[in-house]
Amino acid sequence: MAQEDVFKKLVAHCKEYGFVFQSSEIYDGLAAVYDYGQYGVELKNNIKKYWWDSMVLLNDNVVGLDSAIFMHPTVWKASGHVDAFNDPLIDNKDSKKRYRADVLIEDLMAKFDAKMDKEVEKAAKRFGDSFDEAMFRETNPRVQENLKKKEEIHSRFVKALHDNDLAELKKIIEDYDVVCPISGTKNWTDVRQFNLMFSTEMGSTADGALKVFLRPETAQGIFVNFLNVQKTGRMKIPFGIAQIGKAFRNEIVARQFIFRMREFEQMEMQFFVAPGEELKWFEKWKEVRMKWHQSLGMGEHKYRFHDHDKLAHYANAATDIEFEMPFGFKEVEGIHSRTDFDLTQHQEYSGRKITYYDPEKGESYVPYVVETSIGVDRMFLSMLAGAYCEEEVEGKDGKKESRVVLKLPPVIAPVKLAVLPLVKKDGLPEMAKEIVNDLKFHFNCQYDEKDSIGKRYRRQDAIGTPFCITIDHQSLEDKTVTIRHRDTMKQERVSISELKGIISEKVSMTELFKNL
Amino acid sequence: MAQEDVFKKLVAHCKEYGFVFQSSEIYDGLAAVYDYGQYGVELKNNIKKYWWDSMVLLNDNVVGLDSAIFMHPTVWKASGHVDAFNDPLIDNKDSKKRYRADVLIEDLMAKFDAKMDKEVEKAAKRFGDSFDEAMFRETNPRVQENLKKKEEIHSRFVKALHDNDLAELKKIIEDYDVVCPISGTKNWTDVRQFNLMFSTEMGSTADGALKVFLRPETAQGIFVNFLNVQKTGRMKIPFGIAQIGKAFRNEIVARQFIFRMREFEQMEMQFFVAPGEELKWFEKWKEVRMKWHQSLGMGEHKYRFHDHDKLAHYANAATDIEFEMPFGFKEVEGIHSRTDFDLTQHQEYSGRKITYYDPEKGESYVPYVVETSIGVDRMFLSMLAGAYCEEEVEGKDGKKESRVVLKLPPVIAPVKLAVLPLVKKDGLPEMAKEIVNDLKFHFNCQYDEKDSIGKRYRRQDAIGTPFCITIDHQSLEDKTVTIRHRDTMKQERVSISELKGIISEKVSMTELFKNL
Repeated sequence: MAQEDVFKKLVAHCKEYGFVFQSSEIYDGLAAVYDYGQYGVELKNNIKKYWWDSMVLLNDNVVGLDSAIFMHPTVWKASGHVDAFNDPLIDNKDSKKRYRADVLIEDLMAKFDAKMDKEVEKAAKRFGDSFDEAMFRETNPRVQENLKKKEEIHSRFVKALHDNDLAELKKIIEDYDVVCPISGTKNWTDVRQFNLMFSTEMGSTADGALKVFLRPETAQGIFVNFLNVQKTGRMKIPFGIAQIGKAFRNEIVARQFIFRMREFEQMEMQFFVAPGEELKWFEKWKEVRMKWHQSLGMGEHKYRFHDHDKLAHYANAATDIEFEMPFGFKEVEGIHSRTDFDLTQHQEYSGRKITYYDPEKGESYVPYVVETSIGVDRMFLSMLAGAYCEEEVEGKDGKKESRVVLKLPPVIAPVKLAVLPLVKKDGLPEMAKEIVNDLKFHFNCQYDEKDSIGKRYRRQDAIGTPFCITIDHQSLEDKTVTIRHRDTMKQERVSISELKGIISEKVSMTELFKNL
Repeated sequence: MAQEDVFKKLVAHCKEYGFVFQSSEIYDGLAAVYDYGQYGVELKNNIKKYWWDSMVLLNDNVVGLDSAIFMHPTVWKASGHVDAFNDPLIDNKDSKKRYRADVLIEDLMAKFDAKMDKEVEKAAKRFGDSFDEAMFRETNPRVQENLKKKEEIHSRFVKALHDNDLAELKKIIEDYDVVCPISGTKNWTDVRQFNLMFSTEMGSTADGALKVFLRPETAQGIFVNFLNVQKTGRMKIPFGIAQIGKAFRNEIVARQFIFRMREFEQMEMQFFVAPGEELKWFEKWKEVRMKWHQSLGMGEHKYRFHDHDKLAHYANAATDIEFEMPFGFKEVEGIHSRTDFDLTQHQEYSGRKITYYDPEKGESYVPYVVETSIGVDRMFLSMLAGAYCEEEVEGKDGKKESRVVLKLPPVIAPVKLAVLPLVKKDGLPEMAKEIVNDLKFHFNCQYDEKDSIGKRYRRQDAIGTPFCITIDHQSLEDKTVTIRHRDTMKQERVSISELKGIISEKVSMTELFKNL
C-alpha cells in the first residue's frame, strides 16, 4: 500500500475510533485545529505522563513548571519573536489567494527536480541494466540545464532570505514565471512579512488595552522563571526545568493533519549549565532523548538524528530526532544548544540581573542552556503511524479476514484491558463486571458484552488495547480466564488473582524507566 | 491571626516555596496571570489526576475529551457568549480610571450595610446584655432610613440588570453621588457593555482574517463533540464527557490572587441524560461531587452547598460547592442542570441534527445536560488555604519554636517523601541515595543532606511532604530507618523493605477511590 494511502487511512481511523476530530466539525471545522477524542486524550495523556515522569521523577536535578500562555509583551521583544518570527506572504491579485513566497519558490525548485527525475526515468527505461544514473545526470544536457536553473534559484533564494530581501523574493517569483494555481496569472502583489504570533487585547482602561501575544513556544516561560525556580528550589547548576503546555502559531500553510497545527502542545526541558559545558551536555541529552524514544519499542530503524547545517541565531549546536512518518522522516523532537542568548536578552530587556553564583567555580555567570523540545501532537502522530497495521488473520471457520490493529506500546495505549464475557448469560457478565470493578482502580478498563467475541476483539485491536480478558464457563468453575495478547493474538489461561500482576508488569512505566 | 493576614501569608508562602509566581515577574508582572512553580505544578497535576481518574476510570459511562482552545466563532454565537457575556463598564473622565458599573453599585449598597452595622454596634455597646438586635433594627429610625435607601437601590439595580438598561445603571451611580475613589469626582461617562472574551485573528487571506475567540469555558468543546463521542464511543445515555483545559476571560477587576484570573483552568464534566431525568441526576451529581471533595480530608465543615436563587437562562437548577477560604466561603465547583439549551442552540446554528436515539424509549431526543464544573486554580487555592498552618512546636533543647506546615492530603502533596541522611558521612548519604534510587520510580522523592535535620524537616513541612525518612547509624546495622509523619511529627522505626508499601498505602489514589 502506498504511503499516502496509509496516511489517509490513518486519518480516517483517528476519526472513526475517537482519537482525533476536526475542531468544531459541526460548523464545518476550523482550519488546522483539532480536538482529541475519548481515546486520543488518553493516549496523549499517557505520552505526556511518560515524558514528565522520565524528566521530573527520574532526574533529581530536573523540576517542573507550568507557566501561563499569556506573558508580558516585552518577553517576545526580548526573545526576538516580535521582530523576526515572520513568514513572507504574497497575494495573487486575480484569485485573491495568499501564499507563502518561500513555499512558492520551494515548489518552483521542486519542479526542476521533477523534470530531471523524469529525464532519468526515461533514460533508465531505454538503457535497462547498463544504466549509470550518476554518469547520465552529469552529462545529459537537459538535466544539466534544469540543474543550472535550479541552482541559480537556490542561491538567489538563500541570499534573499539571509538579507531579508522581500523585493528579491518577488523578483524570483516573477523571473521564473510562477503562476497562481487558481487564477493561472502572474499578477502578484509585493511580498510582505507576516508575524506568526496570535495577538489579543488584555484588560480595558480608559487609556486602552495591552496588546499581548499567545506564546509561540513554551520555552520563554521557563527562561523568565529561571531565577524564581533556581532560588526557591535551591537548585544547583547543572539543572533543568521541564514544562508541558500549549503554544500557538498562525501558520499560513498548515498541513498534514495534526503534524502542523495552529494550536499545539509542547513538552520542553531547558537544562542550565556552566558556560563551556554546553556541548558536552548537548551530546548527553541527544543520547538520553534517543534512548527515551527507543524505549517505547517502535523499532530503532524508525528513528534517526538530523543535525542542523544552518543554526538559528541563538544556537551553537542543534539536532532533530526524526521519526519515519508515512510522509517521510520528520522531526518529532529538537535538541538545541541555545547558548546564553535567551537569558542575556531577558537580562537586557528586564533590567534584572539573571546570573547564577557557582559555589564550585567561585564566580557568577549567565548560564548556558541545552533545550529538548517535543511537539506532543507530532509524537502522538508518530506513535499512531508506527502502530497502525492492517493484517490478514484467520477468522471464524478458518476463513481469512483482515484486521486493523494499533500496535501501540502498552504503556501508552489508551485502554489497557477489555473484559469480555463469552456469552451474555449464565452469570458470565456478572463475573466480568466483578473483575472490572476490581481492576478499574488500577488500569483504564473496558467492559464489552455486545456482538460476537471476534467482533469485540477487532474493536479492541482497532484502539490498541493490549489485553483482552475473556470470561467463559470454565471461569465459573476454576476462577481462571483467558488473556489474549493483541499483537500475537495468542491466548493463555491464567488465574483471576494473577491478572493484576501480569498486566501491571506490561503496562507499568516503572519497567520502562529501568531501561532509561 | 486575622483571616486577611493568613491570606497574605499564604500568598507570600506560595512565592517563597515555589508554588505560584506572578507571571513575567521580571517584567513587573502581567495583571491577573500567574505561573505555577516547581511544587505548584506537581500539586496541580495531582489534583487534576485525582479528578480525571475519579471521573473517567471509576465511571464506565464517563469518557474524556481534549478539545482545542480555538473554536469556530459561531460556537460562541450559539452559546450566547457573543451577545451576552458582558460586563457594564464606566469611566471617570477626570481620573481616566475604568470601573465595573455593577461593582460600583454593589459597593454603594455595602456602604449602607456598613452604616446600619455601625448603628447596631453602637447600640449593642450601650445596652449590653439586654440588647435585642432584631428589635433594634426594626425600630431604629437611622437603621430604617439606610435600609430603605439600600432597598431602593437594590430594586432599581436588579431591574436595570434584568432589562439590560445601561442608562439606568449610570443614573443610579449619579443619583446616589458615587464618586471615583481616585479623582473624587462624579464626572462619569456613559455605561457601555464590554465583552469578556479575548479575540484574535486567525489565518491570513487577501480577504482578511477570521476573528476567533479564546474559549471562555471548556463546556462548549464537549457540546460540539457530543455526536462524535457518542457515535465513535458507542455511548448510551446516560453518559458523561469529562475535560480539563484552559479558559480565558478578560476580567476587568481581577482579585484575590489565583481565585479570579484572566487565564485559568477548568475541569468540567457534562452528563447527558433523557429529558425529564435531569433533576434526578442533578441531585445524584451533587452528592457524588460533595463526597469527592470531602474524600480529601480537609474537614466536612469546610464545605457547604449554596443553591442559586437566580438561574442562568439555560439552567433549571444550579448549586455551588463552596469552600471556606480565608476570605469567606467561596465557590470551588458549580453543578448545573443546563437543560437542552446548548445542544438545541448548536443544532439551530449548525443546521446539524443533534439528537440521540434511545433504544429503550424507542425515540430520538435532544439530551438534557447536568454539568459539574471546577476551577482548578480555585481548587488549588482551597487546598493550600485549608492546609496552611503555623504551629508552635518543641524545638532543639526543648525550646519552643514555630513551624509552618502545609497539611496537604498526602495523595495530592507535591513531594511524597524526603530521604535524609542524619549526617553527611559514614556512608549514610550513599545509603540514602540508594533508597531514593529505588523509590523514585514510584513516588516524587527528594534527597536532602544540607543543614541540620531540624531545618530539613521544616523545609519539607513548608512544602507539605507527608513523610521524611531519616537514615542514621543504626540503619547501616539493621537496615531500618525512621519515618517521620508530617502532621504529628511522630517518628517510627521501620525496615527499609517495608517503606514502599507503607508510603504507597498512604499516598495512593486507589485507597481514596474506594471511599467514593
